[in-house]
Amino acid sequence: MTQTRIVLAARPDGAPRPEDFAVTSGPIPEPAAGQLLLRTLYLSLDPYLRGRMGSSASHSSGTQPVTLGAVMEGGTVGEVVVSRDPRFVPGDVVAAATGWQQFAVAPAAAVRRLNPADAPVSTALGVRGMPGLTGYAAIREIGRPRPGETVVVAAATGTVGSLAGQMARLEGSRVVGIAGGERKVRWLRAAGFDVALDHRDPDFESNLADATPDGIDVYVESVGGRVRQAVWPRLNRHARVPVCGVASAYSAAATGLDTDADGLMSGLVTRSITLRGFVFSDFEYLRPTFEREVADWLRAGDVVHHEDVVDGLVNAPSAFLGMLAGEHLGKRLVRVAPEPQSEDQASIA
Amino acid sequence: MTQTRIVLAARPDGAPRPEDFAVTSGPIPEPAAGQLLLRTLYLSLDPYLRGRMGSSASHSSGTQPVTLGAVMEGGTVGEVVVSRDPRFVPGDVVAAATGWQQFAVAPAAAVRRLNPADAPVSTALGVRGMPGLTGYAAIREIGRPRPGETVVVAAATGTVGSLAGQMARLEGSRVVGIAGGERKVRWLRAAGFDVALDHRDPDFESNLADATPDGIDVYVESVGGRVRQAVWPRLNRHARVPVCGVASAYSAAATGLDTDADGLMSGLVTRSITLRGFVFSDFEYLRPTFEREVADWLRAGDVVHHEDVVDGLVNAPSAFLGMLAGEHLGKRLVRVAPEPQSEDQASIA
Repeated sequence: MTQTRIVLAARPDGAPRPEDFAVTSGPIPEPAAGQLLLRTLYLSLDPYLRGRMGSSASHSSGTQPVTLGAVMEGGTVGEVVVSRDPRFVPGDVVAAATGWQQFAVAPAAAVRRLNPADAPVSTALGVRGMPGLTGYAAIREIGRPRPGETVVVAAATGTVGSLAGQMARLEGSRVVGIAGGERKVRWLRAAGFDVALDHRDPDFESNLADATPDGIDVYVESVGGRVRQAVWPRLNRHARVPVCGVASAYSAAATGLDTDADGLMSGLVTRSITLRGFVFSDFEYLRPTFEREVADWLRAGDVVHHEDVVDGLVNAPSAFLGMLAGEHLGKRLVRVAPEPQSEDQASIA
Repeated sequence: MTQTRIVLAARPDGAPRPEDFAVTSGPIPEPAAGQLLLRTLYLSLDPYLRGRMGSSASHSSGTQPVTLGAVMEGGTVGEVVVSRDPRFVPGDVVAAATGWQQFAVAPAAAVRRLNPADAPVSTALGVRGMPGLTGYAAIREIGRPRPGETVVVAAATGTVGSLAGQMARLEGSRVVGIAGGERKVRWLRAAGFDVALDHRDPDFESNLADATPDGIDVYVESVGGRVRQAVWPRLNRHARVPVCGVASAYSAAATGLDTDADGLMSGLVTRSITLRGFVFSDFEYLRPTFEREVADWLRAGDVVHHEDVVDGLVNAPSAFLGMLAGEHLGKRLVRVAPEPQSEDQASIA
């Protein structure tokens, strides 16, 4: 009894090529106590797998790449063929992550039972599975669009994007979906997106501007590249950008686009890093506490600070240039006029 | 009665030069009802002003640049010389934003009275002012370091960084301050930073690695460039990066560093955009609600989805490459084996 397995044959340099994979045959393993032999029903193909193939293009995801010669990773839905765990019987269908092979042994504790009566079991890899939860969280926990806001969804026909876009529409937002090609655009229109745009259209950038007259409040990002470049200048203040992937960074092809920014954003995803720009005025509500605490710290000597005072307004340019060059220490100020010595003196003068 | 004013003479292309400013003289204005004539005491110089000088290097901050020929902007502390508002008398000292000039008229409603008994009035432009609140919010609202975590602060001798770093230390974090030059490094050590590093040191990157054996949990960012590049790979999962500026992006000099990423991050700041990478497993706690709601939406037809099923494991590579090329629609799956027709049939087979 042998089975077919697909292994990683080479690490791609840029876009993966067919010869990076090899089809091999191997034995069907025997489950030990507590394990199941699964027949793979569905294997999920997701963009993140490009990263798992390794090479310099993988942007150090923090996860180990697939070993050369090993079976490719991947989420799966499998049928229990042999059960050595009392909780499962042959015929049960489970969600697993047994990769690119026909049969695999998995610990019973590592799989999740599916109820085919609930929905087609394949949805456990899609809208009811990892990408579905991704799109759901992008809207509920990060994007949080409000009625009347404009939500733009990249890769909007994918599982993540299509769920996110539709959720936003249900919550009363205006939703613009972006996809590549006329077929996908038609699908988006049928799915109820308010506007559907083709990023392959030479006029894509101006079409996006026309479609978002009030700017963009939420951008569900998963692609980077040309789409992100078009979206970026239209993001409103306090926009929320749930980033769950940057597909253009998975393969570091020379695109002429700002791939370094894509790499940076990829790093946010793989380590769930929150990057939040801000200015002090966002935090005006902190001012009373802030003033009290800083005053206490200064008084107690818990906090020290340093002022770098330059005298004379005419010296402001050179002081400013020097500051840009980093010659100052602490807070650089220009003393333009002497302080009044006291209120009495000042009112006399 | 004339006064000295400094105006923007030219928009810099890259690093500003002295000739981008001009010293002029002008009249001392007369306050109208509700206005104050202020004598400038202190003018604040802050990196954001580079952006206000305009030109292509300013990364579209959303604010208008200073008009050519107009007085340069800037935060100020001023003394009331003439008051045409009942709330102020000559000699009062106020925080204002009257720019690079010796005298200016300001609406009384646009200034904030300072009490010189509280602290030196110049601190209203520093540790008790805008940059202080910036550093405070970076720690309290965004970074939120926990005891034992590692906090790295860029530009750590500046007002923002020195307050942020010291607050983190007070809260029990290990704090690494970064600055340029031996003098600043010594200041950081005296201020109680656990480690102080010089980013001009040829060994800066390895010094940072030595100083952060457990990685970095909070990075208070204001500089970009070489410092960010060294910090980035050491950020831990769930790291928080309050970004309040990207100084290396203010002047788009050719540095050989990834300035495009700096430009991207600058955009986050100027519009208070939250950029938060995530993966679905961050949101496992949502799963019960998620499953219930998606099931309801699918049943009601409120949400539709599309599966793109390719048959046969051996077709997985071409299906994957096709997916990376975008040929699929919706969720691409490989059907590796047929689903069991029912539990009875499956257990018979």
